[in-house]
Amino acid sequence: MSSERLIYLPLGGAGEIGMNAYVYGYGKPGKERLIVVDLGVAFPDMDTSPGVDLIFADISWLKENRDRIEAVFITHAHEDHVGAVAHTYEALKAPIYARSFTANIARRKMEEYGYPEETVQILGPLPHQQGAGPFMVGFLPISHSIPESSSLVIDTPAGRVIHSGDFKIDLTPGVGEPFDAALWTEVCKDGVKALICDSTNVFSPDPGRSEASLGPAIEELVSNAEGMVVATTFASNVARVKTLADAGKKAGRSIVLMGRAMRRMIEAAIETGVLRDFPKVISPEDARAVPRENLMLLVTGSQGERRAASAQLARGKYQGMEMKEGDLFLFSSKTIPGNERDVIRIINQFSEIGVDVVDDSSGKYHVSGHANRPDLETLHDVVKPQVVIPMHGEHRHLREHVKLADTRGYQGVLAVNGMMIDLSGNKPKVAEYIETGRTYIDGSVQIGALDGVVRDRIRMALNGHVTVTVILDEDDEPLGDPWVDLIGLPETGRNNAPLAEVLEEDLSQFMGRAKAATLRDGDKLNEELRRLTRQSALNEIGKKPEVTVVVSRLS
Amino acid sequence: MSSERLIYLPLGGAGEIGMNAYVYGYGKPGKERLIVVDLGVAFPDMDTSPGVDLIFADISWLKENRDRIEAVFITHAHEDHVGAVAHTYEALKAPIYARSFTANIARRKMEEYGYPEETVQILGPLPHQQGAGPFMVGFLPISHSIPESSSLVIDTPAGRVIHSGDFKIDLTPGVGEPFDAALWTEVCKDGVKALICDSTNVFSPDPGRSEASLGPAIEELVSNAEGMVVATTFASNVARVKTLADAGKKAGRSIVLMGRAMRRMIEAAIETGVLRDFPKVISPEDARAVPRENLMLLVTGSQGERRAASAQLARGKYQGMEMKEGDLFLFSSKTIPGNERDVIRIINQFSEIGVDVVDDSSGKYHVSGHANRPDLETLHDVVKPQVVIPMHGEHRHLREHVKLADTRGYQGVLAVNGMMIDLSGNKPKVAEYIETGRTYIDGSVQIGALDGVVRDRIRMALNGHVTVTVILDEDDEPLGDPWVDLIGLPETGRNNAPLAEVLEEDLSQFMGRAKAATLRDGDKLNEELRRLTRQSALNEIGKKPEVTVVVSRLS
Repeated sequence: MSSERLIYLPLGGAGEIGMNAYVYGYGKPGKERLIVVDLGVAFPDMDTSPGVDLIFADISWLKENRDRIEAVFITHAHEDHVGAVAHTYEALKAPIYARSFTANIARRKMEEYGYPEETVQILGPLPHQQGAGPFMVGFLPISHSIPESSSLVIDTPAGRVIHSGDFKIDLTPGVGEPFDAALWTEVCKDGVKALICDSTNVFSPDPGRSEASLGPAIEELVSNAEGMVVATTFASNVARVKTLADAGKKAGRSIVLMGRAMRRMIEAAIETGVLRDFPKVISPEDARAVPRENLMLLVTGSQGERRAASAQLARGKYQGMEMKEGDLFLFSSKTIPGNERDVIRIINQFSEIGVDVVDDSSGKYHVSGHANRPDLETLHDVVKPQVVIPMHGEHRHLREHVKLADTRGYQGVLAVNGMMIDLSGNKPKVAEYIETGRTYIDGSVQIGALDGVVRDRIRMALNGHVTVTVILDEDDEPLGDPWVDLIGLPETGRNNAPLAEVLEEDLSQFMGRAKAATLRDGDKLNEELRRLTRQSALNEIGKKPEVTVVVSRLS
Repeated sequence: MSSERLIYLPLGGAGEIGMNAYVYGYGKPGKERLIVVDLGVAFPDMDTSPGVDLIFADISWLKENRDRIEAVFITHAHEDHVGAVAHTYEALKAPIYARSFTANIARRKMEEYGYPEETVQILGPLPHQQGAGPFMVGFLPISHSIPESSSLVIDTPAGRVIHSGDFKIDLTPGVGEPFDAALWTEVCKDGVKALICDSTNVFSPDPGRSEASLGPAIEELVSNAEGMVVATTFASNVARVKTLADAGKKAGRSIVLMGRAMRRMIEAAIETGVLRDFPKVISPEDARAVPRENLMLLVTGSQGERRAASAQLARGKYQGMEMKEGDLFLFSSKTIPGNERDVIRIINQFSEIGVDVVDDSSGKYHVSGHANRPDLETLHDVVKPQVVIPMHGEHRHLREHVKLADTRGYQGVLAVNGMMIDLSGNKPKVAEYIETGRTYIDGSVQIGALDGVVRDRIRMALNGHVTVTVILDEDDEPLGDPWVDLIGLPETGRNNAPLAEVLEEDLSQFMGRAKAATLRDGDKLNEELRRLTRQSALNEIGKKPEVTVVVSRLS
């Protein structure tokens, strides 16, 4: 059997934060049977992906090898791990396994796209296991900022592999299972071939703090507040939502959940039995009758998302509720890099209303859901793997995590998206490089990140757009003058001359002196008109717009 | 003289960080003689101002009152205070006063636009003063992260006003003047009517640290480095550039300055006598002959700017220099909110090369140039003004600064851009609201932020663009079929049908059944074609593109 091998292949998440998608395989080279771990999304931004709705890993390689895929396992219900299950289902058609809460969320996604709930199977935690070709896979509970997060224990003919998923070491997580060192030690006692391990917080030097550490500070803040209190956090952080709600209840406030995701997550957590003893909530309608000093709203939009409850409250009313001077708004969250401007915008809007905003700059109102550097060390030492392969992180995180493993006596292996690692021997090696990338969901269509669609949008955003129209008669002679339509360009350029007129005058002169051969040659005429328009605009306004040339021939 | 009044009017900077522009006036209402303090820029971003080169405050009000402007005073040479002097000179035509270093930078800007150097006059620090109508104005040195930063002491018939400019309380700033409490106390001893005061760091609770505190940590870092060391900071932070260069020299490294701004600033600082004893620098050409462990490059690009030296080094070579595994890159800077993605991008590029990146997360390699909360308190107490008016900050900073003043017994006044404050009496009041906004420099043209140009660009970036062309003959009958040109849109939609073909088919059907009245009515036809194109695209690809309709009539 020496010709069979165990492979690990990250398709997304190993080179970025978000968009997690990992593959394990076992079998003869090129014929390994495969399992997929997580199918998550990343979020677009104006700088690199304007107009795009969602991003996930390019799964072309999986599509090509679809008949080799045994199953998909989802570690937890965060969007960057589960968000693409429905978008990729048609292409992969593999059974999806998840624990109860995660499955509840995944099934909601599948249902939106018309897939039946059986596409997602519920698998309980260890000792439950699921066979998948040569693999036996079990969910090993671990703490994180969402209920029922789990590592995967993947048993293979080449040994046991542990895929950590996202995690932190939390002994008092509030909702969900605490980190159980005894259980982990037991699972790992016979040796672990490889630990594939979360890396996002490798640069955070201090041990992570427990969810339970937040309660007293939040309670104090809420009980000292005089007006209405509004708090935001990721809706999926059910433990935090409960910590906040409990603080509100203690302060004698009625709890209101606002924003679709907030209601959905709490619903899923209650449905699946993950969440118990959540304070009674009242509807926004009923809240209007309650004095504002007796209210606490828990709302979506911790990242300043324009359509979320927090942003709508900052701009005015939302579901009949309105912030007023003397109210308190709490960000029980951290701002993800890239979202700073959006968050700052709503803080300033609240400031204009006279609302006091408290964020996590004091460190008292939020704890991270990921393992900091000392916590990574703890997990390494509990698992004692032959090899540590960092995943879920940008290149800088993976590289630092490899260094950390190496300095502490574990063999660290740097594997980025597309690197297929052969784990069979004692020294992992790169078996193959697979082409990877990003797929955009744009409206209802999937497009490749490098298809040029988004590049053209960015160019129009930077340079504006001119449509140039000319008509040629049956003899290829100009019929009338060329004209232009401008979008995203100044009306007037140098000397206050209207830009459209200047361009039309230059184009008209060109058409007047153009040779018959140029007028007959569609491509050449098109290119000349484009070039001239860009040059003429450059003279007038100092920039070269994007140009669409429309030549109509009456023939 | 009771009918004369003293006014303060922020046009930019009071509601944002950047784009500083403040006006003071004295005289009969509506006829006050005016001085302008600072004419700075802000920087565009893809989210709100794609394609724009620079942003400055809308100076329409100043243009309308141009004959009332006596002079412009520039507090210091940061772009957000001096960056718009050349762009606004034609409109204002007022003499500009600055201290020597600031004037050197301002004159370089004026020269680029063809204005003579006399447009910027050099005014030494107090006791030098400049008369400007009813005002006598003097520069009072204060420490900041650029040489020769100064507050303005503005003497008016209604009393003395102090405009702090940007500042920190630094007793050992390295380059430039330390904060001189005795001098400040002397200047303020006869009472100060109003302190108009920097607010950017009001949320930073700890006292600011001195530039001098950085030297030892940077020296240790550089002397322990094994490969080449590259450090970046704002080029205008001449003291920091010197701190870095001194550390390099101590470690036996030759210093290389890279990036245009870096060479310019050091040149200006040496020319004006601000900078002395700067270590000898060598050119990039000569550096190639030096072993890399004996080199230290000081480069532009602390904010990850794509064209700056740091980003070019991260992508490959720059001026013949190349980063290699084992080299060290130091960000002796903080990342300005909104620039995180750009900075993280180059950190990851360095990580891929194997370069170790050190940033300021440890707090050891950078200090802020602005006054933290306790330092603001110090200045308040030194100046003991009748009124504190916070400036330079977002709304949240101004509001917090007002609260800080109020709780400590000073009268805080919240004034945002456009609020003209009457400072004459004992209680400042809003005299008038002036319309303010932002002017964009876009290529070589100035456009208003609300002209719709940028809005249209953003729409094209989000939605893509379709050009629809139809030709009508002399009888307003369609001549041939309509056709479309797509930019920034997927080629195929649902069921893999080519989007262009589907749109053309729908448009063709519409033209076939359109009534003669519709075909004759230009606006109506245009609107119908636009509406149909958007609806048809929505069905196919799930989004509505921007549409340019070109109807050609052969008449």
